[in-house]
Amino acid sequence: MNMSFLQELFNNITQRDALLWRRQGGAVIHDHSVLVEACRELLESDGEASSITQASRALAIYQRLDDSQKSAFFDKLAEAFAAEPAQIDAAYSAYREARDNSSLQALFNACEPRRQELFRRLNLASGGTYQLVKMREDLLQRLKEAPSLRAIDADFAHLFGSWFNRGFLVLKRIDWHTPASILEKIIRYEAVHEIQDWNDLRRRLDARDRRCFAFFHPAIGDEPLIFVEVALHKGLPTQIQAILEGEQREVDDPESADAAAFFGISNCQAGLRGISFGNFLIKQVVQELKQELPQLKHFVTLSPVPGFAQWLDEQRQGDSLTETTRSALEALDSPGWHRDPELAERLGALIKPLAARYLVEAKNPRGLPLNPVARFHLGNGAQLHRINWLGDTSSKGLSQAVGLMVNYLYVLDDIERNHENYIANASVARSSEVKDLTKRARKLTIGESPT
Amino acid sequence: MNMSFLQELFNNITQRDALLWRRQGGAVIHDHSVLVEACRELLESDGEASSITQASRALAIYQRLDDSQKSAFFDKLAEAFAAEPAQIDAAYSAYREARDNSSLQALFNACEPRRQELFRRLNLASGGTYQLVKMREDLLQRLKEAPSLRAIDADFAHLFGSWFNRGFLVLKRIDWHTPASILEKIIRYEAVHEIQDWNDLRRRLDARDRRCFAFFHPAIGDEPLIFVEVALHKGLPTQIQAILEGEQREVDDPESADAAAFFGISNCQAGLRGISFGNFLIKQVVQELKQELPQLKHFVTLSPVPGFAQWLDEQRQGDSLTETTRSALEALDSPGWHRDPELAERLGALIKPLAARYLVEAKNPRGLPLNPVARFHLGNGAQLHRINWLGDTSSKGLSQAVGLMVNYLYVLDDIERNHENYIANASVARSSEVKDLTKRARKLTIGESPT
Amino acid sequence: MNMSFLQELFNNITQRDALLWRRQGGAVIHDHSVLVEACRELLESDGEASSITQASRALAIYQRLDDSQKSAFFDKLAEAFAAEPAQIDAAYSAYREARDNSSLQALFNACEPRRQELFRRLNLASGGTYQLVKMREDLLQRLKEAPSLRAIDADFAHLFGSWFNRGFLVLKRIDWHTPASILEKIIRYEAVHEIQDWNDLRRRLDARDRRCFAFFHPAIGDEPLIFVEVALHKGLPTQIQAILEGEQREVDDPESADAAAFFGISNCQAGLRGISFGNFLIKQVVQELKQELPQLKHFVTLSPVPGFAQWLDEQRQGDSLTETTRSALEALDSPGWHRDPELAERLGALIKPLAARYLVEAKNPRGLPLNPVARFHLGNGAQLHRINWLGDTSSKGLSQAVGLMVNYLYVLDDIERNHENYIANASVARSSEVKDLTKRARKLTIGESPT
Amino acid sequence: MNMSFLQELFNNITQRDALLWRRQGGAVIHDHSVLVEACRELLESDGEASSITQASRALAIYQRLDDSQKSAFFDKLAEAFAAEPAQIDAAYSAYREARDNSSLQALFNACEPRRQELFRRLNLASGGTYQLVKMREDLLQRLKEAPSLRAIDADFAHLFGSWFNRGFLVLKRIDWHTPASILEKIIRYEAVHEIQDWNDLRRRLDARDRRCFAFFHPAIGDEPLIFVEVALHKGLPTQIQAILEGEQREVDDPESADAAAFFGISNCQAGLRGISFGNFLIKQVVQELKQELPQLKHFVTLSPVPGFAQWLDEQRQGDSLTETTRSALEALDSPGWHRDPELAERLGALIKPLAARYLVEAKNPRGLPLNPVARFHLGNGAQLHRINWLGDTSSKGLSQAVGLMVNYLYVLDDIERNHENYIANASVARSSEVKDLTKRARKLTIGESPT
Repeated sequence: MNMSFLQELFNNITQRDALLWRRQGGAVIHDHSVLVEACRELLESDGEASSITQASRALAIYQRLDDSQKSAFFDKLAEAFAAEPAQIDAAYSAYREARDNSSLQALFNACEPRRQELFRRLNLASGGTYQLVKMREDLLQRLKEAPSLRAIDADFAHLFGSWFNRGFLVLKRIDWHTPASILEKIIRYEAVHEIQDWNDLRRRLDARDRRCFAFFHPAIGDEPLIFVEVALHKGLPTQIQAILEGEQREVDDPESADAAAFFGISNCQAGLRGISFGNFLIKQVVQELKQELPQLKHFVTLSPVPGFAQWLDEQRQGDSLTETTRSALEALDSPGWHRDPELAERLGALIKPLAARYLVEAKNPRGLPLNPVARFHLGNGAQLHRINWLGDTSSKGLSQAVGLMVNYLYVLDDIERNHENYIANASVARSSEVKDLTKRARKLTIGESPT
Repeated sequence: MNMSFLQELFNNITQRDALLWRRQGGAVIHDHSVLVEACRELLESDGEASSITQASRALAIYQRLDDSQKSAFFDKLAEAFAAEPAQIDAAYSAYREARDNSSLQALFNACEPRRQELFRRLNLASGGTYQLVKMREDLLQRLKEAPSLRAIDADFAHLFGSWFNRGFLVLKRIDWHTPASILEKIIRYEAVHEIQDWNDLRRRLDARDRRCFAFFHPAIGDEPLIFVEVALHKGLPTQIQAILEGEQREVDDPESADAAAFFGISNCQAGLRGISFGNFLIKQVVQELKQELPQLKHFVTLSPVPGFAQWLDEQRQGDSLTETTRSALEALDSPGWHRDPELAERLGALIKPLAARYLVEAKNPRGLPLNPVARFHLGNGAQLHRINWLGDTSSKGLSQAVGLMVNYLYVLDDIERNHENYIANASVARSSEVKDLTKRARKLTIGESPT
Repeated sequence: MNMSFLQELFNNITQRDALLWRRQGGAVIHDHSVLVEACRELLESDGEASSITQASRALAIYQRLDDSQKSAFFDKLAEAFAAEPAQIDAAYSAYREARDNSSLQALFNACEPRRQELFRRLNLASGGTYQLVKMREDLLQRLKEAPSLRAIDADFAHLFGSWFNRGFLVLKRIDWHTPASILEKIIRYEAVHEIQDWNDLRRRLDARDRRCFAFFHPAIGDEPLIFVEVALHKGLPTQIQAILEGEQREVDDPESADAAAFFGISNCQAGLRGISFGNFLIKQVVQELKQELPQLKHFVTLSPVPGFAQWLDEQRQGDSLTETTRSALEALDSPGWHRDPELAERLGALIKPLAARYLVEAKNPRGLPLNPVARFHLGNGAQLHRINWLGDTSSKGLSQAVGLMVNYLYVLDDIERNHENYIANASVARSSEVKDLTKRARKLTIGESPT
Repeated sequence: MNMSFLQELFNNITQRDALLWRRQGGAVIHDHSVLVEACRELLESDGEASSITQASRALAIYQRLDDSQKSAFFDKLAEAFAAEPAQIDAAYSAYREARDNSSLQALFNACEPRRQELFRRLNLASGGTYQLVKMREDLLQRLKEAPSLRAIDADFAHLFGSWFNRGFLVLKRIDWHTPASILEKIIRYEAVHEIQDWNDLRRRLDARDRRCFAFFHPAIGDEPLIFVEVALHKGLPTQIQAILEGEQREVDDPESADAAAFFGISNCQAGLRGISFGNFLIKQVVQELKQELPQLKHFVTLSPVPGFAQWLDEQRQGDSLTETTRSALEALDSPGWHRDPELAERLGALIKPLAARYLVEAKNPRGLPLNPVARFHLGNGAQLHRINWLGDTSSKGLSQAVGLMVNYLYVLDDIERNHENYIANASVARSSEVKDLTKRARKLTIGESPT
């Protein structure tokens, strides 16, 4: 089916409504109770066509609340749009009696917070889905200070898990022929290696050895959910600047590449936190690339190591390092050390083993790797393949990871097994090179490995 | 966003899978327990990428079950994929104690039948949404004989209500430029006035005074969910054959029409029973038409009256009609009565008032109109506007409604009020003409109005 | 660039104009001089925006002329819209004097018939291109009786050769997802093996082992120019009914096919006679198929042999056949001979060699093969590969070719050489099998080969 | 018809070829005779499929010639690809004898420079059309120094006039949803008021009161031919900076605008010089806008007045101005005069009348207005409506037009008449305000109006 017409229609409606809001929106609304009332009416309506208007109206009001009124609204949502205790008690009694599907169904219905039906009805408004995502974004910012709002977040998460099911997502290639309205969002949302401007974007996208793919949801139009940037490569890449600056263009012709390097995965919608797309994205992109370029052999990341610098500092201040190691590492404190090749090499010989230990053995309270990027790729079934000394010499790279970058390798035949071992035993799949590094780390440290 | 590429991709994957199934599918699977096991594994997986394969596999197995094995599978679903009583009991205890959002959330989660998560995960497979719709279609056919399966249906209904939220639907105009793969489905699904073949379809679609619109869901591609056929008209139409045969083409130029007549609304997916689209469709189509043809004044249906012939028979056999009426109606028993103009006119003078009584006063146990078409349009806020004698002289029209058709009128300013009155008091909005007919019916009957 | 919006716009305009014409068009115009006058005005205008209106008007008038007035209009075009003799004489004098580019240019301009500028200006109207194609269609029907109109045809041919340059054509795959408005034209235009109805069309298009491609021109929208039907096959096909009836579906899976059989090439626009597309189409389709299905090895036609039956009759009535041959062929005169397997086999042993002689040695006055289908494929560089006895047992196949069909094979590496030999020496590339048949034909005939 | 697939295909081929060229293109070709030979072969081929390869090859060679070799190639084209004198002489003799259509046709064919057939055949290559446009761009740069090449240019112009016939162009709205690959060309090609960067572009395009439309040709894909920028406005705009900087956004809602102001028309392809699109573009855009926003009443330009400053200087240096005027104008020589409101007002009172005289009465040798922008719009049938003092206070606006801008008004009912008067009598349609200014100019000058 050619969806472009539909999509256009869809967008038009959304824009028309947006205009409507803007027109009405001259004035901020100073009392959240107007919105609470609108929500009540929406819930009490019979869910039919007039509900669309009511839903649009409620969302428009929400947009005009100021921050404190939004907070007040969320408080009200948590408190007054839950479920009816009396109904739950009655339904539970009936269930305990009957223990059958029908009484279970009734109990389930009684327990469902009314917020969920409210959100489903707000979703009737054109553009509603995206506005609910933004509403959850507002909510998430308040969670820390108002933990009582977590219940609302659970309702959002439950619905979004269903609405943003992978079966509803569409993968789209992003390139220089993509509408500017989408590209500007790529610039805005790139979270790993910032895109400076349109020229920078063009360097990243508009070359024969670059690919970019994003997931979209039909109901939220031009807004990407997550995207990944890929560089086609001969062999595994070791250095991110070479890729970002477009120097490492060994493969003018994509058909001569043997590796696809994923060098940036960015989630775009804060309001979709916890709804997992990245895993599906990587695997579908691997399939796309294999279909386009059957000669590709390696699917690998060039990933940052956030947190390593901090961990290393802790080791240096603690007592786990040998004295020799500790004193050798003092060179890190003199700025510009990475521009002295000899010094850098000496430091690398120490830091790579320590990084291997960090990635393999440093664990969080749940017994999983401390490093979040490692958790993500290892959980996907990838292998910790290589640690690249001075892989990122940007100031960000130096300050968060002492210049390290890591290759995680997706070996298609091993993914399933790696994934299962990781889930079952938190066991970290790694190359022999990394194994060697971990061994070498023993000589640099005292006593047991840290956790 | 240009979705055509994505959609194509999407469809391709679906087709590839379909092929895969067909290839494997030589053999029917004779034991539903294979599927039950596959569902268990899917539920126990961690919901990440390998789940896609597991989900595809499970759906493929389902397709190869024969009818009796499908029944056995549904039985198992009802029985073994509900919720854990012990967990529910514990969660309820905690809830009764705390009565807070967090314990409510936990209780809600404990009560949710595992089938819902199972269906969400099956939906990961490409083409999964449509296959779940078909699965429910299979289920619905079994409900009468196996009422214990209603619990599964409730789970489907809960999920589909969320997935097929109006916010996710796209309206598409159907015309002669629409792909044949969609048009053949219009031929197949037309439920009101059968479409014989492609020539018949063309007569209905490919004229300047015809419109057809359908709702689609992005994840199920070319399959329409519901569609409506419209004839542009000067004045309100009274006779369906004139429209179907393309004779009543008073308006070669759409811009000279003042009325849009909805003469057929067909639901396409049995598996989506109870998920209401018709109301949204009519109202969105009214908006589309007003935008295209601002001069349109009347939005009206030309609707069948299924059940009227049977009701009339019951009256004739009962004792509610006066003797004169009863004997005058005997002419209906001689075939071909409708071709005798004089006789037909005499009969019409009796039958139109009785039809008005039927539509306005005959009620079902819930106190709503007995006639389902009336329930639909009155519930939408339309007005019962005119009863057209010999409006449908096809054999179907004669046998189900003694040749009657009805105009329901959508007066935009009254819709809300009509709808509310109908919901609140089951009150039937009607024109003065229909009111007169109802009065006249009193003279033809004895005692009180029937219910 | 996403052209769909543009194209839609384009079509809309065309349709709007078409409506305009239809509205005005109640009355036929009885005097071509109105049109002649309109053409004069158009030519005298300065070619700017008001010309669009003038061009639309002129084309609308043309459409309302009856047949005799069209003839009169063409006479006038031939006579009064040529060039100015005095200007030509003067320009020639200047050219003879100067013999330079500038005087040549002036002479060229003086010689260009004013019709060419007229047609270019008529083309300004939206939908103009297609209407000019239809105008030439009208013209071509008159050429035989009015050879003086050939000059107009030369002007059309000159312009169309430029406008329908292969660089402006777009190849489009036709399948069951193609809009019905295009598919109905495929039904209408199929010239080789008639398509009965939509079900027949679907059998031809909507199977995994079928392909269909057409050339379109952006300015004439939904109207295909030429299309080709392809069956994917294991080995070379020998029998057309098996393909048309969908029985010979050896390859459910296209990826198991090793041959692509072109079994129908149809020109769609009579008004584009002589503008050659077929050659480009076949070669581009070969490229498309190789890209989709790299395993394909053979690109071959299954072609009719129109004219063979007539040629054979002439041989039987003439004196070129041996007495034995002649008498053996008498069996052809008894209807139903092809249903007697033994008889059919005996006849085949005679007729295949004679067919080889016909295809290879029977020549037209220009020294090229008498058979037009052979001329087309041999001219394209194909090889006459195999003669299939009883390859087409339809009544058309029997009556025009005694049931024969032919495979022409496109061997990519030989195309260039075959083509050059054919152009240079009219030499017919043929397989050793066909060579053997030609030799065998010598024994069936007396004296030299016919021409 | 959905062309996007086709177009994509088309572009893909082009890109593939482009790659091919780049790969081969390491080496510059140092001898144009290779190309001349390739062109000869192409012309001698029979125009069938192998020609595509030959054409692609020839164009690839052209791209690798350096500038001097391109010049040599053009020389050869002019000299050796004209027509055969002997054939022309013979054809002329026959024509003088017969004076009929058939001999005229033969003479026309004999006179047609072989270059035209060469260009038609080069056009067979995918992407050929655009490359021929670029080839003419190369040619045009040489015309001044090598007037003998004008003959080649005439051939290009003849073909392009036919190929880029308005009937083949498609209008496309350009906005923020347009692919970046097209938008970057808008930035590059904007000729009237330079676009600085992407932010500047966005200000111009992505606002509810802005429109931009471009003509495209299907065979040259993403390359716009010409585009126009429009600001929706309440009343007629007087000041360009307000528009460019997005300050003059009186109409947040397009539906409250009553005027559409065309503030920039840019031709994009130097190689299409002389092929007129602007007139068609303006009129089609007027239609588009009227359809979208029926309430629009005024279609007007805000146009620059290039050349006025120079003309004014000439007047000041000559003797046509009165002494008072001359001395009052001396204030113009002190930089920053336009920032002194009082001074600026005094100067405006003098300069506006002089500008009216310039626009209405200063003529070029052909008797048409000296100002090229005036010629364009007056030729289109617009009216010289208003002269805006300090309408463009950019340094470019001050230096070329002493800060003036002009509104040309397109009054739909008058266009035809204005156009005819202009063509017939070079008469300048103007408002009474401008007429008054012209009268006032008499008092500032001595003697007759200048020409």
